[in-house]
Amino acid sequence: MVVRADLAGQPAKLAVQVRPPGGRPMPAVSHPYWLRDNCPCADCRDPRGGQKRFQIGDLPDGLTAVEAVEDAAGLAVLWSDGHRSHYPAGWDAPAGPDERTEHAKRLWEGGDFARGLPEADWAAYLADPEERIAVLAAVRRSGFALLRGVPVEEGRVLAVARSFGYVRETNYGELFDVRVEPDPANLAFTSAAIAPHTDNPYRDPVPTLQLLHCLRNDCAGGDSGLVDGFRAAALLREEDPAAFALLARVPVPFRYRDRGAELSAAMPLIGLDPRGAIREVRFNNRSTDTAALSALPPAELDAFYAAYRRFAAITLRPGLRLDFRLAPGDCLVFDNTRLLHARTAFEPGDGTGGHRHLQGCYADLDALASTLAVLRRDTAVLDELEELFAGEGAGEYLGEDVTLAAHMLQAAGLARAAGAPPALVAAALLHDIGHFRGSGRELMAGTDNRHGAVAAARLAPYFPPAVTEPIRLHVDAKRYLCATEPGYADRLSPASAHTLALQGGPMPPDEAAAFAAHPFGPDAITVRRWDEAAKDPAAPTPTFAELRPLLMESMRP
Amino acid sequence: MVVRADLAGQPAKLAVQVRPPGGRPMPAVSHPYWLRDNCPCADCRDPRGGQKRFQIGDLPDGLTAVEAVEDAAGLAVLWSDGHRSHYPAGWDAPAGPDERTEHAKRLWEGGDFARGLPEADWAAYLADPEERIAVLAAVRRSGFALLRGVPVEEGRVLAVARSFGYVRETNYGELFDVRVEPDPANLAFTSAAIAPHTDNPYRDPVPTLQLLHCLRNDCAGGDSGLVDGFRAAALLREEDPAAFALLARVPVPFRYRDRGAELSAAMPLIGLDPRGAIREVRFNNRSTDTAALSALPPAELDAFYAAYRRFAAITLRPGLRLDFRLAPGDCLVFDNTRLLHARTAFEPGDGTGGHRHLQGCYADLDALASTLAVLRRDTAVLDELEELFAGEGAGEYLGEDVTLAAHMLQAAGLARAAGAPPALVAAALLHDIGHFRGSGRELMAGTDNRHGAVAAARLAPYFPPAVTEPIRLHVDAKRYLCATEPGYADRLSPASAHTLALQGGPMPPDEAAAFAAHPFGPDAITVRRWDEAAKDPAAPTPTFAELRPLLMESMRP
Repeated sequence: MVVRADLAGQPAKLAVQVRPPGGRPMPAVSHPYWLRDNCPCADCRDPRGGQKRFQIGDLPDGLTAVEAVEDAAGLAVLWSDGHRSHYPAGWDAPAGPDERTEHAKRLWEGGDFARGLPEADWAAYLADPEERIAVLAAVRRSGFALLRGVPVEEGRVLAVARSFGYVRETNYGELFDVRVEPDPANLAFTSAAIAPHTDNPYRDPVPTLQLLHCLRNDCAGGDSGLVDGFRAAALLREEDPAAFALLARVPVPFRYRDRGAELSAAMPLIGLDPRGAIREVRFNNRSTDTAALSALPPAELDAFYAAYRRFAAITLRPGLRLDFRLAPGDCLVFDNTRLLHARTAFEPGDGTGGHRHLQGCYADLDALASTLAVLRRDTAVLDELEELFAGEGAGEYLGEDVTLAAHMLQAAGLARAAGAPPALVAAALLHDIGHFRGSGRELMAGTDNRHGAVAAARLAPYFPPAVTEPIRLHVDAKRYLCATEPGYADRLSPASAHTLALQGGPMPPDEAAAFAAHPFGPDAITVRRWDEAAKDPAAPTPTFAELRPLLMESMRP
Repeated sequence: MVVRADLAGQPAKLAVQVRPPGGRPMPAVSHPYWLRDNCPCADCRDPRGGQKRFQIGDLPDGLTAVEAVEDAAGLAVLWSDGHRSHYPAGWDAPAGPDERTEHAKRLWEGGDFARGLPEADWAAYLADPEERIAVLAAVRRSGFALLRGVPVEEGRVLAVARSFGYVRETNYGELFDVRVEPDPANLAFTSAAIAPHTDNPYRDPVPTLQLLHCLRNDCAGGDSGLVDGFRAAALLREEDPAAFALLARVPVPFRYRDRGAELSAAMPLIGLDPRGAIREVRFNNRSTDTAALSALPPAELDAFYAAYRRFAAITLRPGLRLDFRLAPGDCLVFDNTRLLHARTAFEPGDGTGGHRHLQGCYADLDALASTLAVLRRDTAVLDELEELFAGEGAGEYLGEDVTLAAHMLQAAGLARAAGAPPALVAAALLHDIGHFRGSGRELMAGTDNRHGAVAAARLAPYFPPAVTEPIRLHVDAKRYLCATEPGYADRLSPASAHTLALQGGPMPPDEAAAFAAHPFGPDAITVRRWDEAAKDPAAPTPTFAELRPLLMESMRP
């Protein structure tokens, strides 16, 4: 990183040669407003959620950097208004591409899945975060995933949606039944074939995800088909750029009406981001209200229909389409802003509602993406903790006969054996991580390292209070027990007795009364007892890997 | 309308001079695909919901019109594939502008509401369709409306949302509390002032509506403010077109994270439709993740920040802002894609949660627009019925001593006096509208006009089966009663006895058994009895206006 600061003359620009890790070097002349807008100090950004604490207009006019110093840890800047910023190395790693455009997707044709669909067993998906990550990542990347073995019960499709997001209720209800109806207002509720389309194009915002859960499918026909609308649009762009540009530019009115609804939206068939990347496809001839297109200049009307027919023909190319059959218990989750779905005709069965019955609902991609990111973040946090246990954790524990890692693992083992809930097992497992990164040595050297508070603060972004509060309070719990339980102080290990004084000694009565009344006081006391008992080199010690699923479970409320 | 058809030579284009009612004449050379795509026949479009029954690719290549004839009723076309279309006059009246862009809005500044806010009393809103229309239309047009007197009870904000649409659940829950929290992760949950902003910019799709219901507001400060973001954007376009263009083009990354969420979306601050009209504003400095903007070319980064600051300054102009104070029971409903909302700082109160407490939730504009359109449509249907009663209804009723209108009004009066539910009162009121438009004369002339079925079909798009089924079956009910109830036939009026034979005479036993088992058979019989009793010129006769609220109520399930 190269820093030059013109500290004297005209409103200075701070030139920073930014070289993002792994990225191409960027010869950025960093505008002071950009740099200052990204000041990471706690006055400028809430350290918890990263929310900015100022408005862009709060920055003074003519802002300049009057001092800029680079050190090993990053870049320190003194601003003309007296504010000081420190940017740690790597602070401005640019974000990846917008995850909703074609650039973040795997564009596919049917044959690409010859070796199998992206799928998972529902039970495994629920039990294993890695399975959940794989399924949700497939929906983002390929536009769909298939969950197998979802219980064949009405309403279960809602539970699938809620496993990663929120149900988007529409005029069709929270969920809808796809089966033959006696007097259908919608082609979906007949036994006819349905050409590839997206759903609800007459809604804005359109539901960005759709789920279809198969309850019964024992009739002849009724197979499912998917087409990657982004791939189809990319082919149109390749083969007829003018047609592509037209479909991306002309808003097409979509409309749906029935007794209770009068829905309409006007959107292009192909939606682009501001830089021209494919970001959304709406395709549903049934719901186009094309009469309104007569507002187009006549020449464009001709060209529009030619382009529309060309795009439609591409979506019907057999090579593009992925055909498969939903069996009872299968739940298809797919991106309704990208994939077109279809079905073949089927024999309508015995007239009592037919032999093909799906239940569907809508949801949204943003919550799915959030759930995926949280799962990945939580997995990374557990990886980091596992490394700490294997690394620093193998070191000595304040002079006890067990290592720090063994001590915490034993405490968690005792909690698990006692049938404690996951949050309390997690609290036992992580109660001393405040000693990691060298801070345990401070305590032995005579300074209270406040390791309960340090651990709680480190864990708070990822674990709920039911985990972090007993950890924060576990040192106070020792002080409480020494003050209130006869004989407790005498049973402390020599090291624990040594640190008691540094930590404030036994609690005075008013402090003890407040502690006992704290909502997490009793949990902290429980953790404390396991803590004291977990210093036996001969005791059984579970591994971190064994406890990891419980730990993961404790991260979600 | 001028029609020329080149029936001989090259693949013909059908030239139609379209003159939409009230619009400018459009010299459209109507492409055959456009015209054919809009064929209104029942094979091409489902008459119930208007869904198209073919795919655009189903139309043959080289489609031409081989015959085109204009008559008084419209345009008849014979196509080269043998299909015949008939386009009634006025079929292609172009749609209005996209209702989500600036062109369909009333752009405002704070002073424009000096004479009062768009507001309504909650009870009146619930009771009166015209009030509902006014409130929902204000949200569409001005971006907000205020409901007063919503009961001061937790959770009521959800009922307000459900009065016109669906709640959009987010990571903040179905609803969220806006009040001072002890350890807030979000500035909203403090007592600090909040500058004008839109909510949830890190969601895509962003919730397009927000509701805020005031439960308590007795502290000093905590006033509300709204700014029309479309107006602010339009001012920027006027004053600095290049800045406007830049903000409409650069996707800004927004981000929110907490223990359970990792949300991000990249969208321009000003969203335009494909033709360049303002369609959406996202503005929330707290959640901008602007570091990712370093991917911009350096020159644009400078220009972006200058434009961003200029736009921010416009949103803060005192003249733009509308200030008001929410009182307990007020519920503000506003367009989160357009209006920026703000609040002043307040005294946080006694520390038990503060003296200012709002509950909020999100919803979407598309459902609100649908509800508004259905209300307007239903109102228009009732207007039309009211006109029929006053016009044709004043004519004679098959030789009875009362007019047709008086007959139906009396029947409804009897139903109302019997305490019948709204649907059955509506059935009684409308049971003979199949006689309107001249068809009553057919019956007297000796042809069964099937007036029950005709009325049911006319009403089916607007009324539920609980209204239309008893109407459809009320002629059969007469045939049923004549067959099964001794003496019933003898009590028929002479006219009714005359038409009985035309209608099929008393039911044979198997038909009567089926009728009795029909889910709406009993209701049809009940309506029939009121029908027979409603032919007394001396009996009290309610007015249509009196019955109109009941009729409106019967339209919704």
